[in-house]
Amino acid sequence: MIQRQIVLQPIGIIHTDFTTKENIPRQGRLGTNNNGWVEINPEFVEGLDRLTEYSHIFLIFDFNQSEGFNLTQITPNHHQQKGVFATRSPYRPNPIGLTIVSLERIEGNKIYFSGADMLDGTPLLDIKPYSPELDVYTEAKGNGNSHFRN
Amino acid sequence: MIQRQIVLQPIGIIHTDFTTKENIPRQGRLGTNNNGWVEINPEFVEGLDRLTEYSHIFLIFDFNQSEGFNLTQITPNHHQQKGVFATRSPYRPNPIGLTIVSLERIEGNKIYFSGADMLDGTPLLDIKPYSPELDVYTEAKGNGNSHFRN
Repeated sequence: MIQRQIVLQPIGIIHTDFTTKENIPRQGRLGTNNNGWVEINPEFVEGLDRLTEYSHIFLIFDFNQSEGFNLTQITPNHHQQKGVFATRSPYRPNPIGLTIVSLERIEGNKIYFSGADMLDGTPLLDIKPYSPELDVYTEAKGNGNSHFRN
Repeated sequence: MIQRQIVLQPIGIIHTDFTTKENIPRQGRLGTNNNGWVEINPEFVEGLDRLTEYSHIFLIFDFNQSEGFNLTQITPNHHQQKGVFATRSPYRPNPIGLTIVSLERIEGNKIYFSGADMLDGTPLLDIKPYSPELDVYTEAKGNGNSHFRN
């Protein structure tokens, strides 16, 4: 039906302490001492200018260790069947990950952050600033048990 | 340096009232009467199961009308030079868009929402639930003038 293919290239690599899926916190916010750092390809470093004006950033990355997907999945904590788009599972039609992390500092082409929940070596696709004006919805409702990764 | 290419396919198409870039609100949250709907490819409809448990969702999409990018850009409102990763500009190394919208209802393969800020016909790549537990950072700090699209 839709023919267009979108081809992306990593802009850097995310480094964390997590070398297997089993020891990753289900979400970065729920972990402790889960710091990480991003190594930005040198050609893109200029794009980080003034990023440190933000305390939090979105990391958009490639779930490159996730092969295939299931349209419905059982959530790990509450064993509830959900559509994949109602979960943060890495096994998705387009294996794109999204995590909000706390920006600690930038040194050259290295971005240090806390709140890591991705495997060491994960390809980074994009960084966007998290804006309190745009991205905070305190009125949001959601099933608190269903957003965890499988 | 990094060789991997990531190839994605749209999972649907976003329909809005915006046919030119000039009349798009700079961010969906800042617009009024900016409703939209997503037409999900039929093969992915099962993935929407229980999505309506959430009031807000992330739409991740392809800025398919944005050719090329600039590593530094001048923000439109305050004429401040910023790195592209400190903006929500569509002219990015990987042209991925991210908008949080308010989920109104789902009918078959159609998802109706408010808070549109993308062009009519935009290819959708992914949907994720917005979780109050994970995604609300009321303590976040950021330059309120710098996150708008160019």
